[in-house]
Amino acid sequence: VNIITLTTDFGTRDWFVGTMKGVILRLNPRATIVDLTHEISPGDLRGAAFALAACCRYFPKGTVHVAVVDPGVGGARKAIAVQTADYFFVGPDNGVLSFALAREEIKSVRRLANEKLFLHPVSQTFHGRDVFAPVAAHLSLGIPFSQLGPGQKDFIRLPWPEPKRMQDGIEGEIVYLDHFGNAITNIPNMSLGARGGESVFAGRKQLGPVKSFYQAVPAGRAVALPGSSGLLEIAFNGGSAAERCGLRIGDRVSVRRPTR
Amino acid sequence: VNIITLTTDFGTRDWFVGTMKGVILRLNPRATIVDLTHEISPGDLRGAAFALAACCRYFPKGTVHVAVVDPGVGGARKAIAVQTADYFFVGPDNGVLSFALAREEIKSVRRLANEKLFLHPVSQTFHGRDVFAPVAAHLSLGIPFSQLGPGQKDFIRLPWPEPKRMQDGIEGEIVYLDHFGNAITNIPNMSLGARGGESVFAGRKQLGPVKSFYQAVPAGRAVALPGSSGLLEIAFNGGSAAERCGLRIGDRVSVRRPTR
Amino acid sequence: VNIITLTTDFGTRDWFVGTMKGVILRLNPRATIVDLTHEISPGDLRGAAFALAACCRYFPKGTVHVAVVDPGVGGARKAIAVQTADYFFVGPDNGVLSFALAREEIKSVRRLANEKLFLHPVSQTFHGRDVFAPVAAHLSLGIPFSQLGPGQKDFIRLPWPEPKRMQDGIEGEIVYLDHFGNAITNIPNMSLGARGGESVFAGRKQLGPVKSFYQAVPAGRAVALPGSSGLLEIAFNGGSAAERCGLRIGDRVSVRRPTR
Repeated sequence: VNIITLTTDFGTRDWFVGTMKGVILRLNPRATIVDLTHEISPGDLRGAAFALAACCRYFPKGTVHVAVVDPGVGGARKAIAVQTADYFFVGPDNGVLSFALAREEIKSVRRLANEKLFLHPVSQTFHGRDVFAPVAAHLSLGIPFSQLGPGQKDFIRLPWPEPKRMQDGIEGEIVYLDHFGNAITNIPNMSLGARGGESVFAGRKQLGPVKSFYQAVPAGRAVALPGSSGLLEIAFNGGSAAERCGLRIGDRVSVRRPTR
Repeated sequence: VNIITLTTDFGTRDWFVGTMKGVILRLNPRATIVDLTHEISPGDLRGAAFALAACCRYFPKGTVHVAVVDPGVGGARKAIAVQTADYFFVGPDNGVLSFALAREEIKSVRRLANEKLFLHPVSQTFHGRDVFAPVAAHLSLGIPFSQLGPGQKDFIRLPWPEPKRMQDGIEGEIVYLDHFGNAITNIPNMSLGARGGESVFAGRKQLGPVKSFYQAVPAGRAVALPGSSGLLEIAFNGGSAAERCGLRIGDRVSVRRPTR
Repeated sequence: VNIITLTTDFGTRDWFVGTMKGVILRLNPRATIVDLTHEISPGDLRGAAFALAACCRYFPKGTVHVAVVDPGVGGARKAIAVQTADYFFVGPDNGVLSFALAREEIKSVRRLANEKLFLHPVSQTFHGRDVFAPVAAHLSLGIPFSQLGPGQKDFIRLPWPEPKRMQDGIEGEIVYLDHFGNAITNIPNMSLGARGGESVFAGRKQLGPVKSFYQAVPAGRAVALPGSSGLLEIAFNGGSAAERCGLRIGDRVSVRRPTR
C-alpha cells in the first residue's frame, strides 16, 4: 500500500501542504496522498486527534497516517512514529495521535532520530516538511520500522472525557462541532438502550427521544441520534444545532432512561 | 478508467471527505479521486446540481461521478446510480444529479439496493461513506451495472428556469454566483446573436453590449460576456459583480437586440 | 514523471479546479495532480508568484508547475511555458511565474501558440481549462517542448523588493502573511549573522534577538526567527503575529547588529 494521509492545522491558503506532498512524491512518486483535513484550528491538538481517530480505520491496512499540529516544533517535544497492527502513525509526540492510537493494537513506538531520513537542512519551524513527510514516504516504501530511531515505551496521551453512568442514564458532554453544526458528544451509541425511549437533554433543554435520522423530526427542530462516528450527536433539521441551540464544546448532555 | 469525482456539501474542515476516500481506496487502491467541490452550501441541491453539470463532461469516459447533498439521508429518499453513454452517476435520488443527467444519454437507472456492496453497519446519517463511496468504488472496478439493484424508470429532476424568448431579445435570470463574484445566468451563449450588438440589462441597469473577455471594459466597470460554462455571465473588471452590482440568484437579466 | 501542480486564484467552491483536473486526466489518466493552493486572492499575482517560488523546488525533477492567476485572460497578454533545468512552468506571461523562475536555470521560453494542443472551442475567460491544463498534460506526456509554439527571449518579471544593507544591519519589509498570521519578510536567513545577537524591529517595535523556534519565547510574545522559506519571519507564540502586532504586507522590518 502506498497511501499516506495528512491531518494538519496548516490551512490550504499557503504552500505548506503542497510542499509536504512534493517532498513525499520526490521520495515515492507512486504515493497516493489523501488530505483528511488541514483546517484544524491552529494548535488544536484535541480537534486534530478527534478527526484522525474518527476516520483512520476506514483506510486500507498499511496506510501511513501523518498528523502535524505542532506548536512546539523545534523545541523539546519528540517526534515519533507508531506501528500498530494495521497502520503507521507519524507526528509530534504531543498527544495528536493519541485518540486514534487508543483503539489500535500498538506494535512499536519509535522516536524519529535517524537523520538520514530527514530533509536537510532541517528547519526548526517546519518539521512537517523536513521530518514527518520524508519519514512517511520512507514508511510507504517499506523501510524497516526499527530504522526510524530508538524505541520508546509510550507516547503522550490527551485526556478524553469519559461519560458517567448515572442511576437513570448517562451523562456526557459535547466534544466536537462539525461543519453542519452537528454537536458530537462523548456518549457512545452503544450505551443507548436497544429498546429506545430515552430522553436526551442538552443542559436542561429536553430534546426528546433518540431518533435515527435527521428528518425524523419536523424542519426547525433539534434531534438527538446515533452519529456516524459511533457517538450520540445533536443535530437540527434544516440548520445548525450549534447555532440554533447555542451548543458549545464542553456543554453537558445527558440521556435518561424512561421511568416506569 | 479508475476516476471517481466527489461533489458534496461536507466542507473540508471535518473528516467526512477523507473517510469516503478511505472507503474507496480500501476497495480500489488504484482509484484516482478528484474533488469537484465540497463547499456546496448545506442542503443546496441546485448549487450542487449546477456544479456537477458544469464540469462532468470534461472527464474521461467511464468516470464515476458521485454527488452527495443529502438532507433526507436515512429517510424515504432513494439512492440511485445512473449509467449514461459516457459516465456513471451515483447519489441520492433527490435531484442532485438531474442537471448533469439532462444532457446525457441515459442507459440505465438502478436503485442502490444490493447491500453486499455497502459498508456495514450502514448508518442512517452518512450514506456518503456507507453506500455511495463503496458503490462508486465497485463501479470503478467494473462491477456489472445490473448488480447494483432493481431498475427504475426515472429519477427526480430539479426544475430549471428556462429563459424566455421576447420580441426584442431574451429574458432570463441569475442562476449561480461564483467565487469571483461573477453572476452566471440561464441564457445560453448560443442564443446570443452572432453579429453582436445586443444590450444586456441586469434588472433595469444597462450593462452595455456583450463583450468577449473581462478586461474588454475599463477597470471598475461591469461587463456581460459569454461565460465558460456556455451561459451568459456578468462580471466586473477588478472586482466582484455580485457585490459591486448587488446581484443575487434569481435576479432578472435580459438581452435586447439592437433596434434598427 | 507524471506530476502536475496547480496554483490558482479559483477558490475551491466552484468547479473550476475540478474541470482543469478532468481535462488533464482525459489526456493523461496517469497524471498525479497536486494542488499548491487555489486560495490566492483574486488577481494577486505577487501572492501566487511567492507561493509557487516557495515550494516548486520540493517537487521531483520533471514536474510541470501550472499557475493561473489571470485577470487579463482573453486579452493581449501572452500564454507561455518555460523549460528549466529541472521543471516545466506553464501560465500567463504576466509575472506569476517570475519569482519561481528567478531561481531556475532557464532552458527555453515558448509562447503557447500550437492550437492543436488546446481544448476547443477556446473560451476567452477560462484558459486554465482550455489552454494551460491541456498543455500541462501534453508536457507530462513528454511532448517535445519546441512543439508548444515559437520561442521568445524573455518573460515578464514582477518587481521583488530587495532588502537594503545598512551600516548597522539590514532593512527589509514584510512580503507575505501566512495562514497562522506569521509575517514573512524579504530578508534572507543567510544574511543574519552566524553569531546571532541581532535585534529585530518591526517598524519601531523591538522584537528582541533572533530566536530559532516559535516557543523560544514565552506564550503571548512575538518572536523573529529564520523561516522555513529561507526568509526571516515574525511569529507570535500562541497567536497571529499579523493580528497581535498589527503587521501588514509592505511594513518595514530591520535587523540591527549588536553595537560593541
